[in-house]
Amino acid sequence: MTKDDTYHLLYWPGFPGRGELIRLVLEAGGADYTDSALLPDGVNEVMALVQGKAPDDGRNPPVLAPPALRHGDLLISQTPNILLYLGARLGLVPRTAEDDGAVYRVNALALTALDGLCNEVHDCHHPMAVGLYYEDQKVEAARRSEDFVKNRLPKFLGYFERVLGSKSAGEGGWLYGGQMSHADLVLFQCLDGTKYAFPKAMTKLEKEGAYSKVFALHQAVKEVPKIKAYLASDRRQKYGKGLYRYYEELDFEA
Amino acid sequence: MTKDDTYHLLYWPGFPGRGELIRLVLEAGGADYTDSALLPDGVNEVMALVQGKAPDDGRNPPVLAPPALRHGDLLISQTPNILLYLGARLGLVPRTAEDDGAVYRVNALALTALDGLCNEVHDCHHPMAVGLYYEDQKVEAARRSEDFVKNRLPKFLGYFERVLGSKSAGEGGWLYGGQMSHADLVLFQCLDGTKYAFPKAMTKLEKEGAYSKVFALHQAVKEVPKIKAYLASDRRQKYGKGLYRYYEELDFEA
Repeated sequence: MTKDDTYHLLYWPGFPGRGELIRLVLEAGGADYTDSALLPDGVNEVMALVQGKAPDDGRNPPVLAPPALRHGDLLISQTPNILLYLGARLGLVPRTAEDDGAVYRVNALALTALDGLCNEVHDCHHPMAVGLYYEDQKVEAARRSEDFVKNRLPKFLGYFERVLGSKSAGEGGWLYGGQMSHADLVLFQCLDGTKYAFPKAMTKLEKEGAYSKVFALHQAVKEVPKIKAYLASDRRQKYGKGLYRYYEELDFEA
Repeated sequence: MTKDDTYHLLYWPGFPGRGELIRLVLEAGGADYTDSALLPDGVNEVMALVQGKAPDDGRNPPVLAPPALRHGDLLISQTPNILLYLGARLGLVPRTAEDDGAVYRVNALALTALDGLCNEVHDCHHPMAVGLYYEDQKVEAARRSEDFVKNRLPKFLGYFERVLGSKSAGEGGWLYGGQMSHADLVLFQCLDGTKYAFPKAMTKLEKEGAYSKVFALHQAVKEVPKIKAYLASDRRQKYGKGLYRYYEELDFEA
């Protein structure tokens, strides 16, 4: 692939989901990209991929699940992997010639946000089986959500508050090295989705002020000009019955 | 960090857990390393890290959870991140000058194995809350385990069988590019742990032969001279009440 190849995101239409994490990085990096979720035949392209019907191109392993990214000859899957690829290419990692550790430090922060505020939030509404409807696991979903709000959410918010207060964060309110990286965009989207799923808890925690740096980061990302323009565009999809969902019976108090 | 710095793994003592994925890469790569799990004061070092009592060194963000890896000035966390760092450094990625895509293709394979056969197997015995005992979530654990064995396990085994049969795998029975990468070591350990946790299902699936390439990879990794020596040493810890656990009541038939 060359610098000039257009990026092509492969993801389900109809909800932001994990594809949104990739979109935010593409948008913040000013990349030229297409998005299967917004193309008329896009859903068939994703279906062929996950059903193993995409041709064996001899270079890229089969893909199990979207999101996937096509860039020239390269086709890669796995959200944190795509973020890493794009972060490095779009100038979203504060990398210096004498210290390639930044790539791995930022990757760890992105992975931790995904673990705690993306995967665990998904599992709150699907704790038993991804192949079953929410309605078939409501009792377990309530038990898991209550534990998430009480124990896991403060743990992850507290961790990122510590990161933002550490010397390695530098000045400016970003997670690492004094400049916005793809980890900040990931944390933004994770917080944004968690606010949608658990508004009672997140509103209370934001008001109480113990995680003020974390909530300030959410606000700061919103104000980044390229992100602000994106969020106001119709490319930004509405939350619904995807990864981040709102169910009144799961909306526990913090 | 320089090429000569010793690697230091920070992980809990007493069970192989996620630390084992890192150990296998260090061993296969012939790296000089120390392991907190085998050091007299190691557990206190890990405790200081996760309790936020480690000094702020000005370079590395705080760590939420082990495993972590120290290499010279660098301290990084998150299993797939550490695997990526070591894989590249220890010659375990079939990288060529004209194609840096190998790094990302191998990383996607490692992440997919970790998702399906490590994180999901953990969640089989802890589907409700990581902070509760297994005994407090036995009913849900049985429901989740039954679904895992019936639906998720064949899905992931089938995916890796497809990967091993694709052109990108090349010759030799490895996942990518005709040579053993850290993704093969990850898949080995994931299969090994899943065999321990669900022996009935795994024995049946191995006998039936639908995933013969996958089970052959498990055997092939065992026979790699450095890995064979490691598995026979007392550095290889026994499974117990860690990430991979055996409970008779969760040992469903495939």
